[in-house]
Amino acid sequence: MLSFIGLGLYDERSITLRGRDALGSADAAFAEWYTSRLSGTNIERLEALHGIEIEVRDRAGVEQYPGSIFDAAADGHAAFLAAGDTMISTTHVDLRLRAHDRGIDTRVIHGTTAQTAASSLTGLQNYRFGKATTLPFPETHGGVPGSVIETIESNRESDLHTLVYLDIDGENERFLTGDRAADLLGDPLGDPLGVVVAQAG
Amino acid sequence: MLSFIGLGLYDERSITLRGRDALGSADAAFAEWYTSRLSGTNIERLEALHGIEIEVRDRAGVEQYPGSIFDAAADGHAAFLAAGDTMISTTHVDLRLRAHDRGIDTRVIHGTTAQTAASSLTGLQNYRFGKATTLPFPETHGGVPGSVIETIESNRESDLHTLVYLDIDGENERFLTGDRAADLLGDPLGDPLGVVVAQAG
Repeated sequence: MLSFIGLGLYDERSITLRGRDALGSADAAFAEWYTSRLSGTNIERLEALHGIEIEVRDRAGVEQYPGSIFDAAADGHAAFLAAGDTMISTTHVDLRLRAHDRGIDTRVIHGTTAQTAASSLTGLQNYRFGKATTLPFPETHGGVPGSVIETIESNRESDLHTLVYLDIDGENERFLTGDRAADLLGDPLGDPLGVVVAQAG
Repeated sequence: MLSFIGLGLYDERSITLRGRDALGSADAAFAEWYTSRLSGTNIERLEALHGIEIEVRDRAGVEQYPGSIFDAAADGHAAFLAAGDTMISTTHVDLRLRAHDRGIDTRVIHGTTAQTAASSLTGLQNYRFGKATTLPFPETHGGVPGSVIETIESNRESDLHTLVYLDIDGENERFLTGDRAADLLGDPLGDPLGVVVAQAG
C-alpha cells in the first residue's frame, strides 16, 4: 500500500488526523521537498512528531528512480509526503499510476492547499476565480512569460480573479517574493490591485 | 477570540492537528451544518472526539442572530466550525467582518476542500480548471440555470475543465446526486465526458 499524504500548509500540525494516523502506521516514509516545503517546520520535527524516519528524495529520486518507494509499498505500507496536497499543482499522479501498474494499492489523504487558503483568507469567493497561473523566476524564463499576462487579462475580461502562484525553488530555498512579483506584473497589467497571501496555514 | 475551524471533507478525523488543538482550547463551540456536512460523522461523534459541546446553528442562527457567538468570543475563546474550509464557497466572511467590527480577534484554521480533492483525485491539474459553478436542484430553479451551461461552455472553449459543485440541502439531508446531474447536463452540453467525485476525504 502506498499512501499519498498531504502535509498541509505551514508546519507539522497542518496535517489531518487521518494523515497522522496513516503516517503512524507506515513501515517507511518518503517525502519530496522540491515542489514546495513547509515554512514552519523541517523534516527533523516531522520525524519527531510522527515517530518515523523520513527519507527526503530529490526530483530525480521521485520521478526517475522511484524503485525503492515502490519496493517499500509492495512489501508493506509506504507513505509519500508532500506539502499541501500531494496531487495538486505539480502532480504526483504519475507516481500513483506507476504504482497502480505494479499492482500496488494507493490512496490519497488530502491536505490543505494554497488554492483554498488564498480564497479563504482574502474573502474572495472561489467561484470568482478563473484559470490559475504560476509566475516563474524571471531570470530562468527571460522575463515574465506572455502566457501569465494572457491568463490574467483573459480572467479580467471575464471579471474574474486570478490566483498567481509564485515560483519556488525548494531545493535551493529560493522563493519569488510578493514585492518582486508586484514589480514584475505591475507594468504589463496597468498597475492592478493585487493581494499577497504568504505563510498561510 | 473567534477561531474559524474547517473540519475538512469526510469525518471527524479530517480536521488538522492545528484545528483539533484550537477546538480543544475553546470555551464554546458552534457549528453550521446547512452549507455542507460531513457524510462520515455527526455532531455527537465530533463532540466525543474533541471533548466539547457543539451548538449547531441554522442559517438564521448564523447570519441573522450571531449575537451569542460574538458574546462567547468576546468573553473567551469561541470556535466556529464548518465542513471543508469555513471561508470557501459559501463564505462566512461576513461573520468574520462583523466580529472584527466588534473588536474581536479572529483567525482561520484551514480545512481540506472539495475544490482540492476534485483536482487531486481525478488527476486533473488545477491549472486546467476555469471558473467553477454550482448546479442547483432543478425543482427550486425551474431547470438548469443558463449561467451553469454558459460557464461550462465558456471553459470548454478555452480548453479548461469545470468544477461543478452539486447542490446540497444540508438541513433536509437532500443531495443532488451524480447520476441526476449527468441527466441534467448531458443534453444541453452534447453528452460530454464527466467525472463524479463523491465522498472524498
